[in-house]
Amino acid sequence: MSVITLTTDMGLKDYYVPAIKGAIYAELPDAKIVDISHDIPSFDISQASFVLKNCYSSFPKGTIHIVGVDPEPKNEKRNVALEYDGYYFIGNDNGIFSLMFDKVPTRVFELTIHSESTFLIRDKFVPAACHLARGGTLEVIGTIATEFNRMQPFRAVVEGNVIRGTVIYIDKYGNVITNVTQQLFADVGRNNPFSIYFRRSSYEINRINRTFNEVPEGEKVAMFTSGGHLQIAINKGGEGSGGGANKLFGLKLNDIITVEFESQFIGHDN
Amino acid sequence: MSVITLTTDMGLKDYYVPAIKGAIYAELPDAKIVDISHDIPSFDISQASFVLKNCYSSFPKGTIHIVGVDPEPKNEKRNVALEYDGYYFIGNDNGIFSLMFDKVPTRVFELTIHSESTFLIRDKFVPAACHLARGGTLEVIGTIATEFNRMQPFRAVVEGNVIRGTVIYIDKYGNVITNVTQQLFADVGRNNPFSIYFRRSSYEINRINRTFNEVPEGEKVAMFTSGGHLQIAINKGGEGSGGGANKLFGLKLNDIITVEFESQFIGHDN
Amino acid sequence: MSVITLTTDMGLKDYYVPAIKGAIYAELPDAKIVDISHDIPSFDISQASFVLKNCYSSFPKGTIHIVGVDPEPKNEKRNVALEYDGYYFIGNDNGIFSLMFDKVPTRVFELTIHSESTFLIRDKFVPAACHLARGGTLEVIGTIATEFNRMQPFRAVVEGNVIRGTVIYIDKYGNVITNVTQQLFADVGRNNPFSIYFRRSSYEINRINRTFNEVPEGEKVAMFTSGGHLQIAINKGGEGSGGGANKLFGLKLNDIITVEFESQFIGHDN
Repeated sequence: MSVITLTTDMGLKDYYVPAIKGAIYAELPDAKIVDISHDIPSFDISQASFVLKNCYSSFPKGTIHIVGVDPEPKNEKRNVALEYDGYYFIGNDNGIFSLMFDKVPTRVFELTIHSESTFLIRDKFVPAACHLARGGTLEVIGTIATEFNRMQPFRAVVEGNVIRGTVIYIDKYGNVITNVTQQLFADVGRNNPFSIYFRRSSYEINRINRTFNEVPEGEKVAMFTSGGHLQIAINKGGEGSGGGANKLFGLKLNDIITVEFESQFIGHDN
Repeated sequence: MSVITLTTDMGLKDYYVPAIKGAIYAELPDAKIVDISHDIPSFDISQASFVLKNCYSSFPKGTIHIVGVDPEPKNEKRNVALEYDGYYFIGNDNGIFSLMFDKVPTRVFELTIHSESTFLIRDKFVPAACHLARGGTLEVIGTIATEFNRMQPFRAVVEGNVIRGTVIYIDKYGNVITNVTQQLFADVGRNNPFSIYFRRSSYEINRINRTFNEVPEGEKVAMFTSGGHLQIAINKGGEGSGGGANKLFGLKLNDIITVEFESQFIGHDN
Repeated sequence: MSVITLTTDMGLKDYYVPAIKGAIYAELPDAKIVDISHDIPSFDISQASFVLKNCYSSFPKGTIHIVGVDPEPKNEKRNVALEYDGYYFIGNDNGIFSLMFDKVPTRVFELTIHSESTFLIRDKFVPAACHLARGGTLEVIGTIATEFNRMQPFRAVVEGNVIRGTVIYIDKYGNVITNVTQQLFADVGRNNPFSIYFRRSSYEINRINRTFNEVPEGEKVAMFTSGGHLQIAINKGGEGSGGGANKLFGLKLNDIITVEFESQFIGHDN
C-alpha cells in the first residue's frame, strides 16, 4: 500500500483537510497518509512547488503526492495525474508541476474521473490517489494529456563572474533560501574567492560553511541546504531567538542576492 | 480496526494532544488516528460542532469521533458516548452534539468509566474509544442516558420572501459561511431572482455560482459549500492574497446576511 | 513495530518535517509516526524537555522518541541514543535529556552512524530510530558514551515554610505552569493553610482545586497538572476567551511564584 501525501493551502483549523483524510480511509482502510504542509500561502503555487520539490523524493518510490493548491481548473486547463521520477503526482495543471520538475514528466494524464462536487480534492483527487495506491494504472483514471502547462521557475542569472539570484523561500527560522544552486555556484565560481551581497551593501559573506555551528551563535552564515540551494542564515537565530536572517537583513521574497567571484587571473589581493 | 478522530481546542504546541495519541497506541498498537482539528477556538462548542458536522461523515462508518472541547462535566451534565448515523461520538454532554446533529442520536450512553485523573480526554475518552474501536459495545462502557443536553443551533429566519441568516463560520481563506442552507434557499426562493445583502448596503450579490473560478480573481462570489451552506467569498482572496471576504466586507461571526427574493408575481423588473 | 515520535522546533510550513517522515516510511513501510510537537520555540531545549517529559510515558513501552531541537553537535558534544524508563530517545547531547529525566538513563550510546548530510535528523536520527523500531539494539548503532551532558533543571527552592518556584511553561490556554511539584507541595505544606502569591501582590490563591469547573467561569484557580506541576489558571480563560492567567496576571516564563504555608504551631488565625 503506497503512501499518500497532502500538500495544501487549507490550514488546519477547518474541516477541509480531515474531510480529505476521512475520504481516503473510507476507500482504503489501511491508508498511510502524510501531511507535507497545509500552511502553503493561499493559492501560492510557487511556494508549494518549492516545499514539495524538496521532500517528495524522501518518500518511498511509488508514493502518491496530492497537490491541493489552486485545484480548480480554469480555461482550457485540467486536473492531471502524472508520473515523475518513480512518484505519482495528482493536482491541477496550473503550472505547479513545471515549477517543481527539472525534467519532463514520464507520463501526464488528464483525469477523467467526473464529479459534480466542488470539493475537487476530496471527490476527484482522492479517488484517483486511492486507485493508484491500490496498484491501479494511470490509464484507468485518465487519458494521455497532449498539452502540459509549462511555467518557468525564476532562475538565477549569470553575468560573467557574477551570479544574480533571488530569494525564493524563507523558512520558519527566517533562513533566506535562494535560487542559486550548489551546482551553479561551483560551475561559475571554480573555487575562486567570492563575496555574497544582499540588499544593504554593508553586509557581505565571503565563505560557505557546512554547518550552522561552524560560526558563533548570532553570527551570519551562508550554507547550501540539503536540497542544494544557497541560503543565508543566522546561527541559532529565529523568531523569539534574536531574529532570523530575514529580519536582520530585511530580506523578503524576490529580493536580489548577488554572488561576485574574483577573476581567476586577478588573484586574491584586491 | 476503526479510525479514531480527535477534535480539540488544545492546539499543537503542548503535550496534551500527543499524550492522547500515545495513550491510544498504548491500548491499540494498530490504531488509526486522524486529527480533525486542534485549532478550535478555546471552549467554543459552536465552532467545534460546525467543523465536525461538516466532515464526520467523510470517514468510514464505525469511525469513533472523540470531541475534546470543554470536556469537564458541570452540574448534572455528564460525559457521553453515542451513536449517530453509523458513527460513534465521545465527549461531554455540554450541548455540542445537539448543535451538530439534525436528528436525535440513535443511542446515548452516559460513560461509566471512572478515572481520578483530571485529564479526561486521555484517561476516560481514550479507553472508551479504544473499546469501541476493538468492536466493543456501548453497553459495556456506559448506561443509557435518560437526558440529553439539547441546545438549539442558531437557524436562519424566514420572513415572507426574505431569509435572514447569520455568519456561523469564517474559514482560513476568509470565506464567510452562513446558516442559510441550500435547501432553505431553494424552498423560499423557488428560482426567483434575489439579492444577497451583507452589512454595508453598497454590496450585493445577485447570483449563485458553482465554482470560484466562474468569477474573475478578486471578485466576490456566492456559492454553496460542499456541506450545503451559503458562503460569501472572494475568488483567490485570503490572508496575504488581497484579503478574504471577511476582511473586504468587514464581516464577523454572527453578522447578519439577508437574502431577498423578488416576489413571483411582481416579476423581475423592479 | 514500535511507534516513532518527533519533537522539533521546525514548524509545519516547511519541507523539513515531511522529509523526515518520508525517510522513515522509505525505511519502514509500516511505520507508526506521531508528532509530539513541531512548535517548540526555536532552539529552546528547556521548553522541548518539558513537553516531551510530560507525554513520553503515555506511549507504549519501546516507543522511540526522536528529539530534533538543536540537533547539531557542538564542541565535544555528540549525538546520542539512550534508553530510559523502557523508552528510547535519540537526539543531541545538548543537555535536553538531563533536563527531562529525574534519574540517570539506563544506557547512553554515542551514535556512530556517519552521514555527510547536514540534515542530521533525517539522515542520522531516522536510520537510528528505524533500526530500533525493527527491534535492533543500541550496540549496533553506537558506542557506550563515557560522558553525558548534565544540565540542572531550575528547581523550586524551599526556605522554611515558603516555596519559591518559577514559571516554567505557559500553555495554549495561557495556563501558567510552575516547577512546584505536587510532591514538594505536600512535603513542605503538610496540609497547612497557604497562600500562593504571584507578581502583583494583590492577587493570591488559598486553595488547590481538583478541576477547573470547581470555580466559576472567569475565576482564577490553582491546580496540579496531570504531570504533577502546580499551575495557575483561569477557568474557561484563554486567547479569545477573556484571556488566560498569563495575560490577566501578567505572568511570563521565569517569573517567580511563591507558596507560603502557615506554620503548624501558629494556627490558622493570623
